[in-house]
Amino acid sequence: MAKRHRYRSVDKALGTSPGTLTYVGQEIEHATKIKRIEYNEADYHIDDSSKLSACRLPASTTPFVHWLDVDGIHEPQVIDTIGRQYHLHPLLLEDVMNTEQKPKLELYDDTRSGDHRSGGPIVFITIKYLHRGTQRQEIDTEHVSFALGTNFLVSFQEERNKDIFEPVLDRIKASSGKTRRNGPDYLLYALMDIIVDHYFLVMERIGDKMDEMEEQIVQEKAGQYTLATLYTLKRELAYMRRAVWPLRDMIGTLLRGESDLIQPATMPFLRDLYDHVSQVIETLDSYREIIAGLMEVYYSIVSNRMNSVMKTLTIISSIFIPLTFIAGIYGMNFDNMPELHSPTGYFWVLFAMLIIGIGEVIYFKRRGWM
Amino acid sequence: MAKRHRYRSVDKALGTSPGTLTYVGQEIEHATKIKRIEYNEADYHIDDSSKLSACRLPASTTPFVHWLDVDGIHEPQVIDTIGRQYHLHPLLLEDVMNTEQKPKLELYDDTRSGDHRSGGPIVFITIKYLHRGTQRQEIDTEHVSFALGTNFLVSFQEERNKDIFEPVLDRIKASSGKTRRNGPDYLLYALMDIIVDHYFLVMERIGDKMDEMEEQIVQEKAGQYTLATLYTLKRELAYMRRAVWPLRDMIGTLLRGESDLIQPATMPFLRDLYDHVSQVIETLDSYREIIAGLMEVYYSIVSNRMNSVMKTLTIISSIFIPLTFIAGIYGMNFDNMPELHSPTGYFWVLFAMLIIGIGEVIYFKRRGWM
Amino acid sequence: MAKRHRYRSVDKALGTSPGTLTYVGQEIEHATKIKRIEYNEADYHIDDSSKLSACRLPASTTPFVHWLDVDGIHEPQVIDTIGRQYHLHPLLLEDVMNTEQKPKLELYDDTRSGDHRSGGPIVFITIKYLHRGTQRQEIDTEHVSFALGTNFLVSFQEERNKDIFEPVLDRIKASSGKTRRNGPDYLLYALMDIIVDHYFLVMERIGDKMDEMEEQIVQEKAGQYTLATLYTLKRELAYMRRAVWPLRDMIGTLLRGESDLIQPATMPFLRDLYDHVSQVIETLDSYREIIAGLMEVYYSIVSNRMNSVMKTLTIISSIFIPLTFIAGIYGMNFDNMPELHSPTGYFWVLFAMLIIGIGEVIYFKRRGWM
Amino acid sequence: MAKRHRYRSVDKALGTSPGTLTYVGQEIEHATKIKRIEYNEADYHIDDSSKLSACRLPASTTPFVHWLDVDGIHEPQVIDTIGRQYHLHPLLLEDVMNTEQKPKLELYDDTRSGDHRSGGPIVFITIKYLHRGTQRQEIDTEHVSFALGTNFLVSFQEERNKDIFEPVLDRIKASSGKTRRNGPDYLLYALMDIIVDHYFLVMERIGDKMDEMEEQIVQEKAGQYTLATLYTLKRELAYMRRAVWPLRDMIGTLLRGESDLIQPATMPFLRDLYDHVSQVIETLDSYREIIAGLMEVYYSIVSNRMNSVMKTLTIISSIFIPLTFIAGIYGMNFDNMPELHSPTGYFWVLFAMLIIGIGEVIYFKRRGWM
Amino acid sequence: MAKRHRYRSVDKALGTSPGTLTYVGQEIEHATKIKRIEYNEADYHIDDSSKLSACRLPASTTPFVHWLDVDGIHEPQVIDTIGRQYHLHPLLLEDVMNTEQKPKLELYDDTRSGDHRSGGPIVFITIKYLHRGTQRQEIDTEHVSFALGTNFLVSFQEERNKDIFEPVLDRIKASSGKTRRNGPDYLLYALMDIIVDHYFLVMERIGDKMDEMEEQIVQEKAGQYTLATLYTLKRELAYMRRAVWPLRDMIGTLLRGESDLIQPATMPFLRDLYDHVSQVIETLDSYREIIAGLMEVYYSIVSNRMNSVMKTLTIISSIFIPLTFIAGIYGMNFDNMPELHSPTGYFWVLFAMLIIGIGEVIYFKRRGWM
Ligand SMILES: [Mg+2]
Ligand SMILES: [Mg+2]
Ligand SMILES: [Mg+2]
Ligand SMILES: [Mg+2]
Ligand SMILES: [Mg+2]
Ligand SMILES: [Mg+2]
Ligand SMILES: [Mg+2]
Ligand SMILES: [Mg+2]
Ligand SMILES: [Mg+2]
Ligand SMILES: [Mg+2]
Ligand SMILES: [Mg+2]
Ligand SMILES: [Mg+2]
Ligand SMILES: [Mg+2]
Ligand SMILES: [Mg+2]
Ligand SMILES: [Mg+2]
Ligand SMILES: [Mg+2]
Ligand SMILES: [Mg+2]
Ligand SMILES: [Mg+2]
Ligand SMILES: [Mg+2]
Ligand SMILES: [Mg+2]
Ligand SMILES: [Mg+2]
Ligand SMILES: [Mg+2]
Ligand SMILES: [Mg+2]
Ligand SMILES: [Mg+2]
Ligand SMILES: [Mg+2]
Ligand SMILES: [Mg+2]
Ligand SMILES: [Mg+2]
Ligand SMILES: [Mg+2]
Ligand SMILES: [Mg+2]
Ligand SMILES: [Mg+2]
Ligand SMILES: [Mg+2]
Repeated sequence: MAKRHRYRSVDKALGTSPGTLTYVGQEIEHATKIKRIEYNEADYHIDDSSKLSACRLPASTTPFVHWLDVDGIHEPQVIDTIGRQYHLHPLLLEDVMNTEQKPKLELYDDTRSGDHRSGGPIVFITIKYLHRGTQRQEIDTEHVSFALGTNFLVSFQEERNKDIFEPVLDRIKASSGKTRRNGPDYLLYALMDIIVDHYFLVMERIGDKMDEMEEQIVQEKAGQYTLATLYTLKRELAYMRRAVWPLRDMIGTLLRGESDLIQPATMPFLRDLYDHVSQVIETLDSYREIIAGLMEVYYSIVSNRMNSVMKTLTIISSIFIPLTFIAGIYGMNFDNMPELHSPTGYFWVLFAMLIIGIGEVIYFKRRGWM
Repeated sequence: MAKRHRYRSVDKALGTSPGTLTYVGQEIEHATKIKRIEYNEADYHIDDSSKLSACRLPASTTPFVHWLDVDGIHEPQVIDTIGRQYHLHPLLLEDVMNTEQKPKLELYDDTRSGDHRSGGPIVFITIKYLHRGTQRQEIDTEHVSFALGTNFLVSFQEERNKDIFEPVLDRIKASSGKTRRNGPDYLLYALMDIIVDHYFLVMERIGDKMDEMEEQIVQEKAGQYTLATLYTLKRELAYMRRAVWPLRDMIGTLLRGESDLIQPATMPFLRDLYDHVSQVIETLDSYREIIAGLMEVYYSIVSNRMNSVMKTLTIISSIFIPLTFIAGIYGMNFDNMPELHSPTGYFWVLFAMLIIGIGEVIYFKRRGWM
Repeated sequence: MAKRHRYRSVDKALGTSPGTLTYVGQEIEHATKIKRIEYNEADYHIDDSSKLSACRLPASTTPFVHWLDVDGIHEPQVIDTIGRQYHLHPLLLEDVMNTEQKPKLELYDDTRSGDHRSGGPIVFITIKYLHRGTQRQEIDTEHVSFALGTNFLVSFQEERNKDIFEPVLDRIKASSGKTRRNGPDYLLYALMDIIVDHYFLVMERIGDKMDEMEEQIVQEKAGQYTLATLYTLKRELAYMRRAVWPLRDMIGTLLRGESDLIQPATMPFLRDLYDHVSQVIETLDSYREIIAGLMEVYYSIVSNRMNSVMKTLTIISSIFIPLTFIAGIYGMNFDNMPELHSPTGYFWVLFAMLIIGIGEVIYFKRRGWM
Repeated sequence: MAKRHRYRSVDKALGTSPGTLTYVGQEIEHATKIKRIEYNEADYHIDDSSKLSACRLPASTTPFVHWLDVDGIHEPQVIDTIGRQYHLHPLLLEDVMNTEQKPKLELYDDTRSGDHRSGGPIVFITIKYLHRGTQRQEIDTEHVSFALGTNFLVSFQEERNKDIFEPVLDRIKASSGKTRRNGPDYLLYALMDIIVDHYFLVMERIGDKMDEMEEQIVQEKAGQYTLATLYTLKRELAYMRRAVWPLRDMIGTLLRGESDLIQPATMPFLRDLYDHVSQVIETLDSYREIIAGLMEVYYSIVSNRMNSVMKTLTIISSIFIPLTFIAGIYGMNFDNMPELHSPTGYFWVLFAMLIIGIGEVIYFKRRGWM
Repeated sequence: MAKRHRYRSVDKALGTSPGTLTYVGQEIEHATKIKRIEYNEADYHIDDSSKLSACRLPASTTPFVHWLDVDGIHEPQVIDTIGRQYHLHPLLLEDVMNTEQKPKLELYDDTRSGDHRSGGPIVFITIKYLHRGTQRQEIDTEHVSFALGTNFLVSFQEERNKDIFEPVLDRIKASSGKTRRNGPDYLLYALMDIIVDHYFLVMERIGDKMDEMEEQIVQEKAGQYTLATLYTLKRELAYMRRAVWPLRDMIGTLLRGESDLIQPATMPFLRDLYDHVSQVIETLDSYREIIAGLMEVYYSIVSNRMNSVMKTLTIISSIFIPLTFIAGIYGMNFDNMPELHSPTGYFWVLFAMLIIGIGEVIYFKRRGWM
């Protein structure tokens, strides 16, 4: 029953100073992969050497959009180095590494940086990439984060599966299309769009599972296992809801223009994203209702079947118990039982039993019990 | 159980560039039908040649209201051409073709158009036209969209049934009434009014079905089928609610005067529309409550009937099992059973059985079990 | 089960131009009755000739408060004439005649009247007059509307019962009290107050019915009928709630001073009305909770009674079935059954049965089953 | 089942002019008791002659805080006289006498008094004093009202119990403490504080009753009576909630500084009061949850016990019915039944019965039914 | 069933003057321990003499952050002395001592102090420190309060366990890190962070208990005890929710910059705290859902098992009762029963019984009852 979706605290981190970088996700053995992509409408460069020296804040005069694609969030020293290069707040880095962090948007304002390393304003976003789990029926979750600056975007993902941002990289390489013509804010949108599109795939799969269960229930083939599956689906939906729900507010914040890093021309695209997220949430809610309905139908079918069984018992017992009593009477051994000596007594009794039995059947039919 | 109302994602669209036009609705074989209607209080012209050349943005000095009525949203190149002519945003066109898009209102501001094709401000509305499904008990859904400009309105609908806007076209032809005297904003209202009026028809039908079920339940003729119908109705209501609910906010946005394209004189009509939508939503909610109530009554009747059956068994068993025991005693074959040899023993035993039976009946009646 | 409270759409009105006057309420045969009352602190005149010529907008210099009391909303041409005389918007008149219209307040601003007939600003209110239905247990509903102008009030009601505003008319005739000293806004308050006071009467009656059902349930005399009554009451409450709920917001709008037609001195009276409406709503909610509680108690009593029945069966069966088995053993016809030939065997068996029976009774008592 | 907490309308008041004073509470025979207390830090005077002549608005130059403590709200002429003396609005007086009025705060602004008697601004508060009912388990309710002016406070309470404000009077007499050093707004706070403190006592008592019921349920001693008590408690909580809930908003209004009659130094005390009211509401909600939980536990225990009973029946019947059948076979009177003539047949059959019985017991144990 | 979490009122405090200091928590015998810590980036001093003379407001020119750590809130005179020294409002001190006070934030503004002792502005916070109870399964609660001034922080905790703020004290001693470089507002954050971190530990433990119960339920080992534990957990969650829920709003108030005492550089840390609190609340909610789900599964398993038992009874009874009836017939003692004298009659009857029995088994299998 889908256990690993429960948030867990970090015992070892208790009492340490805030901002201490700690990785709490699945254990990883690979080294962090880092790609630096620089592009504009005319040209693009890709450095996929994974060297930390490739991570450096672009000059404010650079004609390129600068994208640092970090694949792996389990090495504190790597994250720390990148954070120093791009002037990211220690708490931001903590959230990048904390796979238990729920989705959120945070606006790091330049003027507030105080005693911390100072860069320009930063839009920080962390969301959950959900996809079909490879084994069993789990939803697999990956922790993805973005730090958007004036002329750069740093994206972080867990190093567990293939690079989920490949389609965007391919589009950058392939043509000088929309992505190439726009700034890092459009890039941020394009990457988030991929993640949201995957939510639909997960929904699709849950929907198929639901259809299967509905089939079983309607055809009265449902058993204990059906119910367990419905409960698991219900939990999966609740988990997914918690992962997707904050996104709507996050995008809403950007749409209200609370950060100058988002260009007006990107707004319609963010509105479209907002729309898609709303649709996911709405579908989640309707699925939850449907599952609740299926459970009710299941219980009502089980209860109906039980009722049929009980009715059968009632009818058989109610017919034969009185007849057995009559037979019992004439099985008594009294010396003086006149009926026993009548030559037709036996047949009269059999006839009486028949009449009584038929009478009961008629009575039960009349009351709609048969 | 009404399966097709579940939203489905578009697998093939995964990873494509945003704004790519994709049609996801039912397959259509007809070509798109296009009518261009131009009218004012004095005169009107209709071009129903369905030629794409008829689709062109009217001059800002035109004395006519320009209405482009597009019947068919399944041909990307047609939608794309119209979009270019009327300067509509690619994401708007995507929403026109996406039959899974939930109802929404979007204000495309002129100043924001950035690198996109620039026209005046646009009010974009997409809503669901619901009507009685032709076969079985389904609600049939059509995806309808409107793009309102300063002196034009483009309306899009699926090419599946008759043109739903015919009554308005007839009124334009018939007389120089309210529609002819007003601008494209009033036309938008008039078209939406037709769609909302159809919601009442669908409600009516659901209401009739509900009455039928209530009849069955009250007359104790309800069976497994009744319950299934109630669950289907409940789902239909939930589906309809999701289709109608966003409309209230959409019209509310227009009423707050957020777009200059709506004239003050049109406001009372939009308020009236708002009213009607509120009434649909309220009725939907009351229907949901009634259905929940009917289900409870049904369950309580089933449970009551079961209780009657069980009580009957109890009474028959409780009366005859002890009597059978007595008969059993005098059926034993002991050599020395004095009662057996009494000439009146048999009759005394029969009498005792009668007394015990009657005693039990009285006891059960006293406790209100019979 | 209280069927007529379901809103119904108007099939025939589908596709007609907005503002077309249609009456959808109960069929009426009487002609519309119209009274024109003009009063101030010093004097009053009443014209109850029911002539349409009596309906004319008072001059702005009139020293009188002008009240037009219209009894009957089923004649479109009458409503239309009055509308023209008092410069009322066609959509307002539509709402006056539409008995399915839910309660609402609408402020018709002078500046917005555009191409419509122009008068001063109008406060339009439509509410439901609820009273005890004459036959059976129905709540009877009447559709009442008010149009308040600078120096006049037009009130509309269905022509089905006695004039519900008579007490106010009597107070106007009787003395130069508060009503006579104040303007048409106070008159509007006084008329609405009467309607709200009647809500309390309806509540009272529902409360009495509830007490009756509670009595039946507590005294364990409740049957299928009790439950049906509770469901009917629940529906009545839901219906009444929908009729009363909008009133609170409507009066709240007036209290916020959104219309200049309401004088400051009338405000405390409207606040009092607001209070009463709040009390009705609160009481409705508490009744709903109480009914839900009564149903639960009812179900729990039914279930308890069923449990008693089942327990009795269990005990009787559990005692006598084993004893019957013993009797069955000694009823077998084997040649060699030594016990049968013991002279005291029969008595020993009877004794053993007695011991077993008593043992079971003790066991059941110990477990708290008897 | 705690009937008297249902609000009742006033039939006789139907149709009377608004502001007509009517008392609807319990019948009272005593005369109204009136105390006039005047105090400042240096001195105090008390006039408890109960004469109406003692009720007069203090001069605006008075160095004293003026407190009129009215014990009794059942005499319209007394309330009316006080109202005239202190320039209180007729609707305010109506609310003072209407024991069915729910708690509320009303700010009577000087500028609005219009055609009414004009004094300074008034803060009017009416709340419910709840205390342990003397007989049975009822919560007893008293209707208490306050009218706070610039330099006076009039407090109204029902004349049914002892004066609930005595502790404050005692503190005024005893020392020149906080109350003596502050104005009438602090006095208002101090009086309301006493009422809120009594809510905790009522909660305490409900809590004790709940503990008692919990004890009964956990020790499986619960019966029909326990459930009835839980339902009564639930209703009491609902009633109390309606009485306490409005208080939070009322105090919140004062805390937002909407009336100038409240001095800044009194604010922290009102915040404290707000806190206490919040705590009462929160505790009410948690009690409601606990009661719901107890009911569920109770139902689950009842259901479990029923299940035990049924299982016992099942096991006894399932063991003995087949055995009785075997005995029945050898009780048949066929001429040719070879087994009957075997000298060991009887013993073999007894042995077979024993084996079958033991087999069934083992089967039931294996399935966890015994 | 976790009784002590119910709030209790203070009978003895009824009627006393507001601001009277009363301790209502567990009885304590130790004296209050007081530490005064003064630190800046360069240096630190600790005075742990517990002398009241150590408690004195630092001069406004002090270069140190002044932290007074009070361990013990049960001695009114100690709290009163500290309150006088640091100019804390009597109601603030009342809340410090009142262990029943729910979490809250209060901003004491300088300008409002009126007749009270006047200091600078104060941010007052009181929260609950929750940790694993030492005996049984209780959550143990400690009442913790903070008074933050311009250059000082006073922290209060119950003197029942070890000093919960030791880790922060250790960090101050150990290095001139973040805490030493920042002001008293960062210190306040650091202390609250420790408390919030402990919430995760408590959640962890509840989660483990939940897993254990889930294991029992899934493996069908659940009994009455399992359900009781789930109810206890549900109550613990509800209690914890009430303790944690207000924190979110409290931190939100600080984040909105409503107090100048919070420096901009501390904001990101408070946002992080806000995040953690949100995560606790969200996890609490998801736990509640999971527990509700587990209960439903439990009930459904119990009901299923009961159904199995009943079905078995049905089948055994339905098979053997008719057969016993047949045996009963041939056990009758009529003189004239031809079948009895047939040499093969007995075998035919046995054969018929076999056929009937097999027939019933087949019927039951067909209907899916076996
Ligand atoms: Mg996961
Ligand atoms: Mg996770
Ligand atoms: Mg997308
Ligand atoms: Mg879109
Ligand atoms: Mg569809
Ligand atoms: Mg989509
Ligand atoms: Mg897409
Ligand atoms: Mg309409
Ligand atoms: Mg559907
Ligand atoms: Mg209308
Ligand atoms: Mg049942
Ligand atoms: Mg009606
Ligand atoms: Mg209508
Ligand atoms: Mg219409
Ligand atoms: Mg009234
Ligand atoms: Mg009804
Ligand atoms: Mg009133
Ligand atoms: Mg009550
Ligand atoms: Mg009362
Ligand atoms: Mg009243
Ligand atoms: Mg009245
Ligand atoms: Mg208090
Ligand atoms: Mg306090
Ligand atoms: Mg607890
Ligand atoms: Mg505590
Ligand atoms: Mg308290
Ligand atoms: Mg107190
Ligand atoms: Mg923390
Ligand atoms: Mg931490
Ligand atoms: Mg964090
Ligand atoms: Mg059951």
